[in-house]
Amino acid sequence: MKKNKQQLIEEDLKYIWHPFTQMKRYEGDEKPIIIKKGKGIYIEDIDGNKYIDAVSSWWVNTLGHSNKRLNKALYKQAKTIEHVIFAGFTHEPAIKLAKSLIEMCNNDLKHVFFSDNGSTAVEVALKMAYQYWAQSGHPEKKKFVALKNSYHGDTIGAVSVGGVDLYHKVYKPLLFDIIQAPSPYCYRCPFGCEKETCQLACLKAVEDIFEKEHQNIAGIIIEPLVQAAGGMIMYKKEYMTELRKLCDKYNVLFIDDEVAMGFYRTGKLFAYEHANIVPDIICVAKGITAGYMPLSATLTTDKIYNAFYDVDEDGLKTFYHGHSYTGNPLAISIACENLKILKEMNIEEYLKPKIQKFSKELEKFKKHKNVGDVRQCGMICAIELVKNKATKEPFSYSDEIGKKIYKEGLKLGAILRPMHNCMYFLTPYIITEKEIEKLLNIAWKALNKVLPNE
Amino acid sequence: MKKNKQQLIEEDLKYIWHPFTQMKRYEGDEKPIIIKKGKGIYIEDIDGNKYIDAVSSWWVNTLGHSNKRLNKALYKQAKTIEHVIFAGFTHEPAIKLAKSLIEMCNNDLKHVFFSDNGSTAVEVALKMAYQYWAQSGHPEKKKFVALKNSYHGDTIGAVSVGGVDLYHKVYKPLLFDIIQAPSPYCYRCPFGCEKETCQLACLKAVEDIFEKEHQNIAGIIIEPLVQAAGGMIMYKKEYMTELRKLCDKYNVLFIDDEVAMGFYRTGKLFAYEHANIVPDIICVAKGITAGYMPLSATLTTDKIYNAFYDVDEDGLKTFYHGHSYTGNPLAISIACENLKILKEMNIEEYLKPKIQKFSKELEKFKKHKNVGDVRQCGMICAIELVKNKATKEPFSYSDEIGKKIYKEGLKLGAILRPMHNCMYFLTPYIITEKEIEKLLNIAWKALNKVLPNE
Repeated sequence: MKKNKQQLIEEDLKYIWHPFTQMKRYEGDEKPIIIKKGKGIYIEDIDGNKYIDAVSSWWVNTLGHSNKRLNKALYKQAKTIEHVIFAGFTHEPAIKLAKSLIEMCNNDLKHVFFSDNGSTAVEVALKMAYQYWAQSGHPEKKKFVALKNSYHGDTIGAVSVGGVDLYHKVYKPLLFDIIQAPSPYCYRCPFGCEKETCQLACLKAVEDIFEKEHQNIAGIIIEPLVQAAGGMIMYKKEYMTELRKLCDKYNVLFIDDEVAMGFYRTGKLFAYEHANIVPDIICVAKGITAGYMPLSATLTTDKIYNAFYDVDEDGLKTFYHGHSYTGNPLAISIACENLKILKEMNIEEYLKPKIQKFSKELEKFKKHKNVGDVRQCGMICAIELVKNKATKEPFSYSDEIGKKIYKEGLKLGAILRPMHNCMYFLTPYIITEKEIEKLLNIAWKALNKVLPNE
Repeated sequence: MKKNKQQLIEEDLKYIWHPFTQMKRYEGDEKPIIIKKGKGIYIEDIDGNKYIDAVSSWWVNTLGHSNKRLNKALYKQAKTIEHVIFAGFTHEPAIKLAKSLIEMCNNDLKHVFFSDNGSTAVEVALKMAYQYWAQSGHPEKKKFVALKNSYHGDTIGAVSVGGVDLYHKVYKPLLFDIIQAPSPYCYRCPFGCEKETCQLACLKAVEDIFEKEHQNIAGIIIEPLVQAAGGMIMYKKEYMTELRKLCDKYNVLFIDDEVAMGFYRTGKLFAYEHANIVPDIICVAKGITAGYMPLSATLTTDKIYNAFYDVDEDGLKTFYHGHSYTGNPLAISIACENLKILKEMNIEEYLKPKIQKFSKELEKFKKHKNVGDVRQCGMICAIELVKNKATKEPFSYSDEIGKKIYKEGLKLGAILRPMHNCMYFLTPYIITEKEIEKLLNIAWKALNKVLPNE
């Protein structure tokens, strides 16, 4: 017997604790929306309402929902083998994927360690960096540097290098100590600089830290070009170029968390390419399966790999990390088909007109009285809303501006899930120029409904 | 063009860093085995060799490889919707799964928080327990108690509560402090007791800790009945029954990590049922998808849930944890079909003769001169090998006993991946009694090849 909507909502609220959700807010008119199916850029609810998935379902979807080729690749793999232990055993799809990743990044990185999600990819990176120094004659290099406003995941190691107080403050006593460097937040520069004329004062702060403490620093972890969950904060690629030089100078590992930016979100395979550098470790996840299921990987260099490549008597040089589903054939078969499709699409060229279209459609937002900053990096656009354009005074948490716009967006057929006081667009790549226009019109209407531009 | 085996192995070694693996050991005759397909309890390599998957591919597989019904359920879900953001949105399979889980455990637990793997399920449990006290008027309850020889995963939070030195020692400075209680390791009782006559001296040690420090203790985390990765250490259910009483007496949360034991591995849905207790939080993963793909959940009570159910002004009471693929419809659709199949099989009854058969076949091992202990808990059997049966002197790491038997097992057609000095059998549930006989004959031969029972 099919359940009706009311019954389903009641059962959802009774049994499920949703992520990043104050469940009490689901009372009243904020009930969870029951999604029935998805196709392309749209998801459809139980009542037949369609929504443009403008957040790519938490930044994962790239080729649209329920892609026929990916569905078939998944089923084919299931009929062959769904999973096999990945220690002592391997399989052809995993070899193919690892090889493709290394070749696609031009051999910048050399070795692929698979895990399950962005958080675990970061945990692997941190543990690898830490252990690397421990068995390379520098056990004193134990500390990590991370940036204010950064977000790297929700497991304790990932939270330790996070810099968003709302998410992390309560767990402080469980976290390991890090050294926090300022956020390269150009719109609200902590050093009072302007983007156009800045000399990377924020990076100078990193250099000061390195200069003082490099003997004890294992690595620095950053989100490349965009501090996403911190509020879609975007910064100059030169920051990364210069940071690489500092890491070389002070013997600090450069850990690049490409979980949200990887797989062409910024217009290039990995965001670090914009800066013409090579990190020591990168973390990838989300888009690697085009939005289908969890899979992640941590890629690193020969230098790091070789420090673990040693049969010592007590086995202590081994990297003892793994998850049951490491190297899962189902996820990997989707990733392989995804990379094949992206290649066939000539994805970098394919995205260019879409990036331009977003850019063009964003123009009108700049004139809105509550729009403080309009930012774009490839296929990510963000609009920071402010109470006062002149003073940049932000809205407070209790103003619930983002939430109000989100609710208007739903009525108009788009998921405009806010990031603090930012509206943002991070859509599947297959969105057409016409659909970009449609989406930004919805956003404009929703914005003006909540904050009339009188 | 199809690649040949040699080429695939070379590429595997060049590009892939395998979990829990000293990559240098893959030199020589220990090359990874390339698995081509799987069916039932068997996996088959590229040369057509078949192996009984006696470790259920890291303890995940329950219904055999490439199960037709699960494959179809997966494909059907992919054609409907492969994934959707799980904040603000929900879907019928997730509601169905959460409801089933709660009903199957007789409403012992009430709320389901989904995540991706065992490590994250544990991290969620720890963060939940910690934050619970912080917002229930006891912010001083910050510490966790965990057991020697325990294993709860590889992310920093999970490693912090781990007690296997080989895996965790190197990361010590990154871990949060815990209070370690002794392992309830009956064969090597740290208090010199014998299983038959013991009065749970190991639990008295926990009481001493609680008595002294309960004001500062948030929770205790245990693996129920079996400390699996610590060496398939098995202990009495009374330990759990009495521990529940201590937790009540001293106001300490009981966190039960059912990742490896859940979903009938011990003969019951969850291992805590054997002890007639209800934990405050349980973590489940592995078998929830019958071995198909990563999915986990943390289940808890009304008491804990309600401490987060509050719209405070600054949003700080919310549980800020989530992964992009939380509530993934693909994984959840498999889990739903899995539970349906288990129910149709009348799984508890179905397993009984198999458990007995294992028990019977294990008998002969007891007489082997290097078998120190033979243990069984439902569908898990373990054989602890010793250098000297009288003194219980263990083999050393460099004896590589487990590895030698593993290699013999492969030749004979079974995956006997060791756990330290333990041989163990943890097979898919669909293994027949005849196949159990076959498997244990292989194990017997492999054991006697390496350690002749002269």
